[in-house]
Amino acid sequence: MTTPPPLSPLAVRGAVTAALREDLGRVGDITSAATIPADATAEAMLVAREPGVIAGLDIAAATFAALDPEVAFVPACADGDAVDVGQALAEVRGPARAILSAERVALNFLGHLSGVATATRALVDAVAHTSARIVDTRKTTPGLRAFEKYAVLCGGGANHRFGLDDAILIKDNHIAVVGGVAAAVHKARAAAGHLVRVEVEVGDLDQLAEAMTAEPDVVMLDNMPPETMREAVALVGRRALVEASGNVTLSTVAAIAETGVDVISSGWITHSAPALDLALDIEVSAGRT
Amino acid sequence: MTTPPPLSPLAVRGAVTAALREDLGRVGDITSAATIPADATAEAMLVAREPGVIAGLDIAAATFAALDPEVAFVPACADGDAVDVGQALAEVRGPARAILSAERVALNFLGHLSGVATATRALVDAVAHTSARIVDTRKTTPGLRAFEKYAVLCGGGANHRFGLDDAILIKDNHIAVVGGVAAAVHKARAAAGHLVRVEVEVGDLDQLAEAMTAEPDVVMLDNMPPETMREAVALVGRRALVEASGNVTLSTVAAIAETGVDVISSGWITHSAPALDLALDIEVSAGRT
Amino acid sequence: MTTPPPLSPLAVRGAVTAALREDLGRVGDITSAATIPADATAEAMLVAREPGVIAGLDIAAATFAALDPEVAFVPACADGDAVDVGQALAEVRGPARAILSAERVALNFLGHLSGVATATRALVDAVAHTSARIVDTRKTTPGLRAFEKYAVLCGGGANHRFGLDDAILIKDNHIAVVGGVAAAVHKARAAAGHLVRVEVEVGDLDQLAEAMTAEPDVVMLDNMPPETMREAVALVGRRALVEASGNVTLSTVAAIAETGVDVISSGWITHSAPALDLALDIEVSAGRT
Amino acid sequence: MTTPPPLSPLAVRGAVTAALREDLGRVGDITSAATIPADATAEAMLVAREPGVIAGLDIAAATFAALDPEVAFVPACADGDAVDVGQALAEVRGPARAILSAERVALNFLGHLSGVATATRALVDAVAHTSARIVDTRKTTPGLRAFEKYAVLCGGGANHRFGLDDAILIKDNHIAVVGGVAAAVHKARAAAGHLVRVEVEVGDLDQLAEAMTAEPDVVMLDNMPPETMREAVALVGRRALVEASGNVTLSTVAAIAETGVDVISSGWITHSAPALDLALDIEVSAGRT
Amino acid sequence: MTTPPPLSPLAVRGAVTAALREDLGRVGDITSAATIPADATAEAMLVAREPGVIAGLDIAAATFAALDPEVAFVPACADGDAVDVGQALAEVRGPARAILSAERVALNFLGHLSGVATATRALVDAVAHTSARIVDTRKTTPGLRAFEKYAVLCGGGANHRFGLDDAILIKDNHIAVVGGVAAAVHKARAAAGHLVRVEVEVGDLDQLAEAMTAEPDVVMLDNMPPETMREAVALVGRRALVEASGNVTLSTVAAIAETGVDVISSGWITHSAPALDLALDIEVSAGRT
Amino acid sequence: MTTPPPLSPLAVRGAVTAALREDLGRVGDITSAATIPADATAEAMLVAREPGVIAGLDIAAATFAALDPEVAFVPACADGDAVDVGQALAEVRGPARAILSAERVALNFLGHLSGVATATRALVDAVAHTSARIVDTRKTTPGLRAFEKYAVLCGGGANHRFGLDDAILIKDNHIAVVGGVAAAVHKARAAAGHLVRVEVEVGDLDQLAEAMTAEPDVVMLDNMPPETMREAVALVGRRALVEASGNVTLSTVAAIAETGVDVISSGWITHSAPALDLALDIEVSAGRT
Repeated sequence: MTTPPPLSPLAVRGAVTAALREDLGRVGDITSAATIPADATAEAMLVAREPGVIAGLDIAAATFAALDPEVAFVPACADGDAVDVGQALAEVRGPARAILSAERVALNFLGHLSGVATATRALVDAVAHTSARIVDTRKTTPGLRAFEKYAVLCGGGANHRFGLDDAILIKDNHIAVVGGVAAAVHKARAAAGHLVRVEVEVGDLDQLAEAMTAEPDVVMLDNMPPETMREAVALVGRRALVEASGNVTLSTVAAIAETGVDVISSGWITHSAPALDLALDIEVSAGRT
Repeated sequence: MTTPPPLSPLAVRGAVTAALREDLGRVGDITSAATIPADATAEAMLVAREPGVIAGLDIAAATFAALDPEVAFVPACADGDAVDVGQALAEVRGPARAILSAERVALNFLGHLSGVATATRALVDAVAHTSARIVDTRKTTPGLRAFEKYAVLCGGGANHRFGLDDAILIKDNHIAVVGGVAAAVHKARAAAGHLVRVEVEVGDLDQLAEAMTAEPDVVMLDNMPPETMREAVALVGRRALVEASGNVTLSTVAAIAETGVDVISSGWITHSAPALDLALDIEVSAGRT
Repeated sequence: MTTPPPLSPLAVRGAVTAALREDLGRVGDITSAATIPADATAEAMLVAREPGVIAGLDIAAATFAALDPEVAFVPACADGDAVDVGQALAEVRGPARAILSAERVALNFLGHLSGVATATRALVDAVAHTSARIVDTRKTTPGLRAFEKYAVLCGGGANHRFGLDDAILIKDNHIAVVGGVAAAVHKARAAAGHLVRVEVEVGDLDQLAEAMTAEPDVVMLDNMPPETMREAVALVGRRALVEASGNVTLSTVAAIAETGVDVISSGWITHSAPALDLALDIEVSAGRT
Repeated sequence: MTTPPPLSPLAVRGAVTAALREDLGRVGDITSAATIPADATAEAMLVAREPGVIAGLDIAAATFAALDPEVAFVPACADGDAVDVGQALAEVRGPARAILSAERVALNFLGHLSGVATATRALVDAVAHTSARIVDTRKTTPGLRAFEKYAVLCGGGANHRFGLDDAILIKDNHIAVVGGVAAAVHKARAAAGHLVRVEVEVGDLDQLAEAMTAEPDVVMLDNMPPETMREAVALVGRRALVEASGNVTLSTVAAIAETGVDVISSGWITHSAPALDLALDIEVSAGRT
Repeated sequence: MTTPPPLSPLAVRGAVTAALREDLGRVGDITSAATIPADATAEAMLVAREPGVIAGLDIAAATFAALDPEVAFVPACADGDAVDVGQALAEVRGPARAILSAERVALNFLGHLSGVATATRALVDAVAHTSARIVDTRKTTPGLRAFEKYAVLCGGGANHRFGLDDAILIKDNHIAVVGGVAAAVHKARAAAGHLVRVEVEVGDLDQLAEAMTAEPDVVMLDNMPPETMREAVALVGRRALVEASGNVTLSTVAAIAETGVDVISSGWITHSAPALDLALDIEVSAGRT
Repeated sequence: MTTPPPLSPLAVRGAVTAALREDLGRVGDITSAATIPADATAEAMLVAREPGVIAGLDIAAATFAALDPEVAFVPACADGDAVDVGQALAEVRGPARAILSAERVALNFLGHLSGVATATRALVDAVAHTSARIVDTRKTTPGLRAFEKYAVLCGGGANHRFGLDDAILIKDNHIAVVGGVAAAVHKARAAAGHLVRVEVEVGDLDQLAEAMTAEPDVVMLDNMPPETMREAVALVGRRALVEASGNVTLSTVAAIAETGVDVISSGWITHSAPALDLALDIEVSAGRT
């Protein structure tokens, strides 16, 4: 896997600030304020409680730093790494109050994104004997799309379009209104800028054949059985990229990949991946007044 | 189940606007703009593709309305209702472009929150023969806490604290720094306002006995086997509420509830519940110029 | 008095930035730009022009720092300290333009919050011979609630709830709609999470007796004469906390406290406390080109 | 008094939304949600509990409307009106939950601004036999400057500059750095646009005489005794406007005005005016399910 | 020309609100408040003072509506229309204060965007005898990119990428670091999602030949003379789209287009197009009290 | 020329962040991420490709710093300096990715503002033999007013009012509603604070004579021929400042200035000044892994 491009520091700062505000509320961490002396320090280890693939270390680091720049966050692995039960992800050292107050938000980000990366990696591994790429969808958690798509890269997947404005994807509903798949592709091509690709969803081979007359960049095979997909791949004959969509699970994905499709998209890796179980273990605390 | 209190319209509007901006990007839905005439209208049904409990209909309605107030959203069920495969949740009618452009964001909210409600309901049903309540945690998706906690109510659960500022929860890490569980509770009580409850986490019965000397409002039993929980409940003797935490799954929750604890908290219902599979089926479209 | 917990740096930064934008407008400090050389420096003392209790030094420091991180703000006292006429609160050194441009916003925050702390301290001192605590209300200045509640802590008071969402307070209007005080408390308890306390306002002893059957956590005695309060305290018999509200002034508060109530709430300390008179005296200026 | 210009609806909406968020927190009004049926309605009167001058009715109306546009707010007086104890300011009718949830924020704005208007009116009345105008300062509550300055207009006062960018006011500190009052005024005039007035503070008659050589638009007499002010007014001889500042109280203001100054500025009317005591009395409630 | 897709109402509202705040400042339009009665109404015509192409009518309409929804804005032409000197663009009727206060912001948007559309149309007309399309660049005014790119569509042009994230454009600087144009294209292709196009800038025919071995989607010919462009078009042989860039003016564009390039990009149409001269003429005013 | 006052760092940071978000979109610079190693560094020169006057170096510096504080931006000239073709404006050194990703936004700000400064300087130079000042208007680019007005200062001009709230300017439309120019000025003066100047637009000498009876601070001569302006200047006789407006071009401005007016306003310098052509030339790059 190539290293995923780094997250924008502007976006990380914005998201971390918003999440901290959500957790701190109007007043902040009243438990730590009441029980932890202002000058207490602590050393903690961020550890995995189950195996998985890590994504979001920069966000975790930024969360602690946003509360107190004195907190040191020293990663022991990198985004995209597979980790084992008990493995240390990072060491966190500094003012105890800031560490305890930021802990949950940091873990919420890191656990969620590592869950997405872990689910992605499972699909990627299942198709590793083929040339198919696993990609995400727009079925993401509201507010977290850029981060979840980054986690997909960490898991070894690739990204579908980022939103409604950066590529054209003509779906069955659009075709129904336009009245024909080739007409829809032609309209789209005429309106699209020269750097915008046009993808079209087809439900069967007849529709695919019609679509190909309009020369789309990508065709999406919607919920076809593997045999039909194989025929579709042959019909396209490399004149367009072929994406498989629908009913993609760990048990079906290998068969789908073996049909020769280029790309397999999964909403499950972003909207339903369970969080990776992580914990922050305080190891040493000191500096009490 | 009592009806959950309505979501704040201010919060809904804010979240919906942000999520639409995330999906529309700088330019908006270039596919619909290219293929759908400006005056086309459509009628669509929002349907469940699997059984579950619904949460978030107001957010879905607000998503369509934010793009075009002409879109009519007519609910066919209510938040908190259990629905079957194929059941209609709402009818959506109006300008076709707005319906298609808002569809994914509306489904992302509704699918995610209904997933949380559905997971909650499963735990609630499993303990229905006891008096234990299922509650959530702060292990929520960054940015969506208020909505996820609302979905927990829709599922029949109750809410733990909303953040770090509205109740005191002393955990093992706090105790380690303070140097004793009773001392920590006393410090917390002294600092807390008269409307703030104090909860303390304990790891074994000795710690529980010490904690009880400081008269906490709630004790949290962390990862104890059911037998120990039962002893803990007896030891507390209704002088405090008792919360069970850790290793709460569909297969363990009934046994936990039967120990007599008052409250069982689960992070899984918010951080790992799979999205409920929902779809928007366009049924009629018309009005092309 | 215990040290109040520190203000959230995120909240301080947000408020300071907004207040500076309000004062600087579109263009900034055109007087200093026209008259003060860019490289001039100054040393100034922040002094009290009347006796009082200080609250908000961190906000004042952040105001100068927001305009220029080169400004040094060295506190000579701490929040919660009582100061005399002429006493120095802090030394401010650095670029003259930034000091002069930030001066008014820093003083507006510090004077207002110190006014709240000073008013609170007056009430606290008046009831020091009793066990009653002085608490604030939701009658705060829009936008400044968290800061004003912090100032109340600095004055030696305690905090009532922070908003509509962190505790239940059933008032006469709610009871009128529900149709009975005990019914209202029961409804509230059923809906409340296990960490939410329930307080109920009562207007006379009969209503108090009915309310106590529903086991509220706190009862608020609304505008009762001290004799009635004393009876109310006896009637409650420590089964709930007792809060006195209404007609709380410097001349009445001692008599109220002596009735045995636990908590006395005052809106006056936040909505009507006069600002503490403070000034920034430039002592040395240099570095002119 | 002429009618004050209306508040900007954009500013009102922004402030009201922020204040409601501050009070509603993450979850909203849990008391009303628990006790008031969703379809209950109410009729309430907004009344004065002490005499004063009203300012902010539009903000109060916008507060109720922001929570529910179904709430009707019918004013019974206008901003700038003097009201008596018990006088009705407005009728509020509609959904009971929205009325109860918005009540405190509406009263917090209206009570604070009416307090400012009332304090202003007291000074204005005390100088009514002269031609002096009462004006405000930049000693305002952070975040509320435009509203407080509007309240000053409602009280019959006039506005000083709105911030650091809309007029030049050279104070003692600026003069100290520049090294001379005439030099400072000359520098300011050279830098100022042709629509910017230049005001300069002077501490004694010698400084005033020097300042006048630079032809300022306005001179501010800082903390002078009335006799000196009278001499200063003569010395200026209508070549500039004259502002009196410092030690302005209800007992001193008439004597200050009688010296012939044009403008008298007071920080007290914005930073220390006690809130006007107002209440919302629910009169009828109905519509319970 | 096909109709450009409508601007996002969310984006329009956001931009209009920000621009009005910029013009209204803290206090609003003090001239209209002082001179225009609150109940005065007016009828005005928005007219062109020079010939050009219109873009931004929806933004102008939203500007008036943001200040007062009572203002009626009735367009007399559509975005993309060419208008003559004196031609009416829209009628504006309603409250006089709102019309006068919003006038300048509405004209600033409309004049700027119509200037962009007019400049674009001039280039488009100059190449109408060829198949080349005129496209914009990222050389846009900060904060206005989406609107300026919309205006380019209104002028008959097409859009290049919208930002750094929706397409890959490898420029000379990237190539210098990577060490070769083909290597850079290969790296880009490997990292790009399947809906992302890859464009590469080349400075001469040798570099173009090397680039073509990596099969880019688009090549950009940077500042080549027309003869060289013609050779480049032949060399590419329709295996990629060809974009011409650099030294594009009204006098050079036809010769560039005649070389057979597909796309000609111009920064001038967005960063240097003079505003179109427009005015709002008040025709009738009435309703004075 | 005196040095213009510095831009507010708060405003610069806000504008730069917004512009970077606009360009980076959801994902950031995918070209640099794909082709430039994370540890590559570069040295670049910011150079002028045509002669002009520079404005906005601080904004350019802040743009690079916002992406990576490691980027060093070393100015080789100052705002307000006239530069020649090929002259270096600044050296930019540091992480290559940050430099390449920020380049376009930095150039967009600097090119636009330097264009405004250059256009202003042209008018200023043309009237240098007179005492007339060149000033701007409110015909600015939405969102950039404060920056454009700063650029006017850099060009040697002065600023007209900053918005609708900081000075009164009575235009023909206001007069039409009020029913007379003297009446309008009287109304304005009565409503204005003592630091607000009143300017009035007049269309002919009769209106000017009437206006002068109301003693405005400034009169604006709207679109008068130079001979009439000369008469107007005589008529005013230094009892007010005189502003010329309308038909101000490089070829007309000297004649206008020679009529003796004090101030000449031009919208063209902000709304139609072509951007100054600038470039960032990468000179050295290193540090590839």
